[in-house]
Amino acid sequence: MSGFDFDIVAIGSGPGGQKAAIQGAKLGKRAAVIDFNPYVGGVCLHDGTIPSKSFREAIMHLSGLRVRSHFGQAYRVKQNIHMTDLTQWSDGIIEDVEQTLRHQLIRNGVEIICGTGSFVDPHTVLVEHEGQSRTIKARNVVIATGTRPRRPDNFVIDEDVVLDSNGILHLNKLPHSLTVIGGGVIGCEYASMFAALGLKVTIVEARSQLLSFIDHEISGEFAHFLHDHRVTTLLNETVTSCARTPDGRAVTYLEGGKRIVSDVVLVSAGRTGNVEKLNLSAIGIVPNERGYISVDEHCRTTVSHIYAVGDVIGQMSLASTSTEQGRRAACHAFGLPYQGAKIPSPAGIYAIPEIAMVGATENELRKSKTPYETGIGRFADVERGKIIGDTFGMLKLLFNRKTRQLLGVHIIGESATEIIHLGQSVLATGGTIDYFADAVLNYPTLTLAYKVAALDGLNKIIDSQALPEA
Amino acid sequence: MSGFDFDIVAIGSGPGGQKAAIQGAKLGKRAAVIDFNPYVGGVCLHDGTIPSKSFREAIMHLSGLRVRSHFGQAYRVKQNIHMTDLTQWSDGIIEDVEQTLRHQLIRNGVEIICGTGSFVDPHTVLVEHEGQSRTIKARNVVIATGTRPRRPDNFVIDEDVVLDSNGILHLNKLPHSLTVIGGGVIGCEYASMFAALGLKVTIVEARSQLLSFIDHEISGEFAHFLHDHRVTTLLNETVTSCARTPDGRAVTYLEGGKRIVSDVVLVSAGRTGNVEKLNLSAIGIVPNERGYISVDEHCRTTVSHIYAVGDVIGQMSLASTSTEQGRRAACHAFGLPYQGAKIPSPAGIYAIPEIAMVGATENELRKSKTPYETGIGRFADVERGKIIGDTFGMLKLLFNRKTRQLLGVHIIGESATEIIHLGQSVLATGGTIDYFADAVLNYPTLTLAYKVAALDGLNKIIDSQALPEA
Repeated sequence: MSGFDFDIVAIGSGPGGQKAAIQGAKLGKRAAVIDFNPYVGGVCLHDGTIPSKSFREAIMHLSGLRVRSHFGQAYRVKQNIHMTDLTQWSDGIIEDVEQTLRHQLIRNGVEIICGTGSFVDPHTVLVEHEGQSRTIKARNVVIATGTRPRRPDNFVIDEDVVLDSNGILHLNKLPHSLTVIGGGVIGCEYASMFAALGLKVTIVEARSQLLSFIDHEISGEFAHFLHDHRVTTLLNETVTSCARTPDGRAVTYLEGGKRIVSDVVLVSAGRTGNVEKLNLSAIGIVPNERGYISVDEHCRTTVSHIYAVGDVIGQMSLASTSTEQGRRAACHAFGLPYQGAKIPSPAGIYAIPEIAMVGATENELRKSKTPYETGIGRFADVERGKIIGDTFGMLKLLFNRKTRQLLGVHIIGESATEIIHLGQSVLATGGTIDYFADAVLNYPTLTLAYKVAALDGLNKIIDSQALPEA
Repeated sequence: MSGFDFDIVAIGSGPGGQKAAIQGAKLGKRAAVIDFNPYVGGVCLHDGTIPSKSFREAIMHLSGLRVRSHFGQAYRVKQNIHMTDLTQWSDGIIEDVEQTLRHQLIRNGVEIICGTGSFVDPHTVLVEHEGQSRTIKARNVVIATGTRPRRPDNFVIDEDVVLDSNGILHLNKLPHSLTVIGGGVIGCEYASMFAALGLKVTIVEARSQLLSFIDHEISGEFAHFLHDHRVTTLLNETVTSCARTPDGRAVTYLEGGKRIVSDVVLVSAGRTGNVEKLNLSAIGIVPNERGYISVDEHCRTTVSHIYAVGDVIGQMSLASTSTEQGRRAACHAFGLPYQGAKIPSPAGIYAIPEIAMVGATENELRKSKTPYETGIGRFADVERGKIIGDTFGMLKLLFNRKTRQLLGVHIIGESATEIIHLGQSVLATGGTIDYFADAVLNYPTLTLAYKVAALDGLNKIIDSQALPEA
C-alpha cells in the first residue's frame, strides 16, 4: 500500500473539499476529509450560502414582496416579523443538508476525520482534536479551508451592533436601521433582504458601482430596485472606521467626513483565507497578504501533489465553482481528463431580486473591440412576469453583430439563477441568438424573456445592417 | 396592388393568429387579424391559459402550500379563501396582457378587424359585426379559430353546478367538493388547484393513467401528490352522464353503476374545433368529426394558400405550439425558410405541481427498441428543493445507453416548465448527459437536479457496461 494512508485527503469539508474527496473515491482511491467542525459542510452550509438563502426564502414569503403588485404595497403575509420567524426556516434545513452531505461522503467510502489539519511535511498531515492527535500520510492533499470575513483593524466588531456576515444571522431581534459596509455579493444580498423586510438600509461602497464585476446595466437596475425599497447607496465612498456608540447604536465614519448612525452595522469588507493553522511554511507555500493561495489551471499549488480549491484560492467565492475546482483537482491528481472546463461557469447572486450572469460583460467586449450588439427582454413584457408580479426583471443578451453568436447573458429578476443555465448551454455550444428566436418555449414562462431579448437584438442588427462599419 | 386587400389575414386573434399576422407584417406584408371578440387574445387570454395560470399563482400564494414544510401542514396564508381573492388576481392581468398584445399588433402595423369571419370563396372573407359587414380579399388566409369545450349530449351543463372549463373560473363561491370528468391537461390542472385549496376532489378518467401522453413515472408521481392532497382518482372509469340533482348538487354516473355526488362537476371531456361559422364548404375543406382541420408540415390545408394553426388543428393545445405554427405558416406563405422545426418542442402543464417534458418518453423508446437508460434527480436531494420546501419534485433523464446522447427530459415540481428548457437546448444540439455532469451550475438551484440525474444515469451504465447485450 506504498506507505500512504490515503490517496487523497481534503482539509476542509465545504463544497470543494467534499467533491475532491468524493471524486477520488469514485475513482477507486482511498479518500478522506478533515474538518475541525464536527459537522461537515463548511462555511457554505453553516454560515454562508445555505443559511442566507433560507433566510432569503423566508423573507420572500413572509414579506409578501412577490405579490404586492396584486394585493397592494402595504400587503404583508405576517405583520410583525421576528428573527425567529426567519431562523426557524433555516435551522431545519441546515441539519437536513448536513445529513445529506454526510451520507453522501459515507456512501462513497470517504473517511470523515474531525480535527484541525496542519502540514508536517508535503505528504504528512497532523490532525489535532481536543488534545488527541493523529498523523496521516497522504499521496495527494487538497487544501479547502475556505475563508472568513476580513476584519479591518479600525472596524470594531463587537458582535452586538457591529457585526460581520457570520454574526448577522444570529441577531436577537430585527433592527430598524442597518448600514452595510461593502457593496459586493454578501453586502448586496443582505442589504436587499433586510430592505425587503422594511428596514432602513444604507450601503457604502468604495467603487463606482454595486457588484462591480457584473454588467453595468444590471447593476444599475439593481440599484434602482434598492432605491425603490428606501435603500440609500453611497458609491465612491471609503469607510475609515466603524464602532459602537456610547448609547448602544453603531456609527460609520466616511473619509469625506460624513457619519452614518444606525442600529446595526454589517461589515462585509472582503474575506481572508484560512491558512494560519495549516503550517504552510513546512511545505514552502506562501499565501498572499489576503491569505489566498495561488494555483494553476488544475488547481495545483507550487507543490505538485498539493492542490488548493474553493474560496481559499481567492477567486469568485461560489459553492458552484468550489465544487468544480474540487472535482478538477481530483481528476488531475489521478490523471483523468477533465471536461468541465470547456463550459463557461455562471455566477448567481441571491439578492432580492436574484441576479445571474454567464459569459462576457459589455466592458469585456468593448475592451476586446468585439463587434457586439445587445438584446433586452423585460419580465414586464412576458406574461409570467405579470402573473407572478415580477414586472421589474430583465434579461440581456450580448451577441456578435456579424455572426449572431451568443457572447453573454445577464439577468436580474425572479428565477434568474435558474434560467441562466439555458444561456450557458447555448454559449457552451457556440450557438447564435437565433436559437431563442426559433425554439418553442413553454408559455407562460420567464424563460420567454430570452425570446423577447433575441427578437429585440435581431431587430437592432437588421436596422444597422445597411450601415458601413465605422 | 393585385386586387388583394391583405397579403395575410388570420381569422382568430389567439397566439397562432397573432403571430402569423405579425410574422407577415415583419416581412413587409399587409396583415390583418379578425376576431369576433372586441378584445384580442382568444381563449388563451380570456378563458384559458392566462386566467388559469393567474388563478394557480393566487392559490399557490394564499394556500401557503409552498411553505407548509416549514410552517406545518395546517399553515395557510389566508384562512378563508374566496373566489374573489382568486379572480381579483387574474382580472388585472388579463387587461394588462390584452393591452400588451394589442400594442404589439398595432406597432407591427397589423390591422385588427372586429367581427365573425367566414369564407365567400378561397380568397374572400366576409366579416360580420353587429349587422355591419365587410368583404376582404386576402392572398393568404390563416384559420386560427381555436376550440371550445366539448359538451357530450348526456352531460347536462347547467352553468351553475355542472360546468365546463369556461364556467369554472366564474363560480360565485368555492364549493366543498368537486368532481372532474377527464384527467387530461385541463382536468388535472383544475383538480390539483382546487385540491390545494382543500376541496374534496374526485377525478374520473377513462384511460389507465392521468395525463396519458406523459411519462408514466411522472404521471404516477403526480397521482401520488394528488392522493396526498385527498384527491380520489378513478381510472379506467367511463362517465355515462352527469346532471344537477333535485337538491341543487351535482351527480356523475359511471358505467359500472357507481355514482358520485359533489357540489360541483367540471366537465373537461376534450374540446371541439370552432369551424361552424367559417363556411368551410365554400372552399372545399372538410373538418373531421371533432371539428379539427388537417394540415401538412407547413400548417397548410388542402387549399394551398389557406393555412390552419393552433388548437383548431387538433394537436397538442398549447399556446407555445400555436405561436410556432402561426410563425411557420406565415414563413411558408412568403417563401421564407423556417428554422424552428429542428428544435424539439417542450410541453408544460401548469398543475400543482408543475409538469414539463421534452423529447421522447420511455414508451416511445421501448417501441423503437432504443438501448436507453434513465437517470433520476430528486428535488429532495438538491439544497434548493429543501429551502423552498419542494422535496417532492423529480427530474428524469432518458438517454442512449451506448452513446449517452440525451433523448428526453421529464420533470415534475416547482419551476418544471422553466428548467425544462435547459434539457431542450441540449437535445437540440444532440448533446450527451455528460453535459449536466460536467457543467458548473449555480448553487443552490433546482437545475442541479439535472446533475444529480446525470450522475445517477452515468453510474447505472458503468454498472451495466460489463454485461453482454441481451
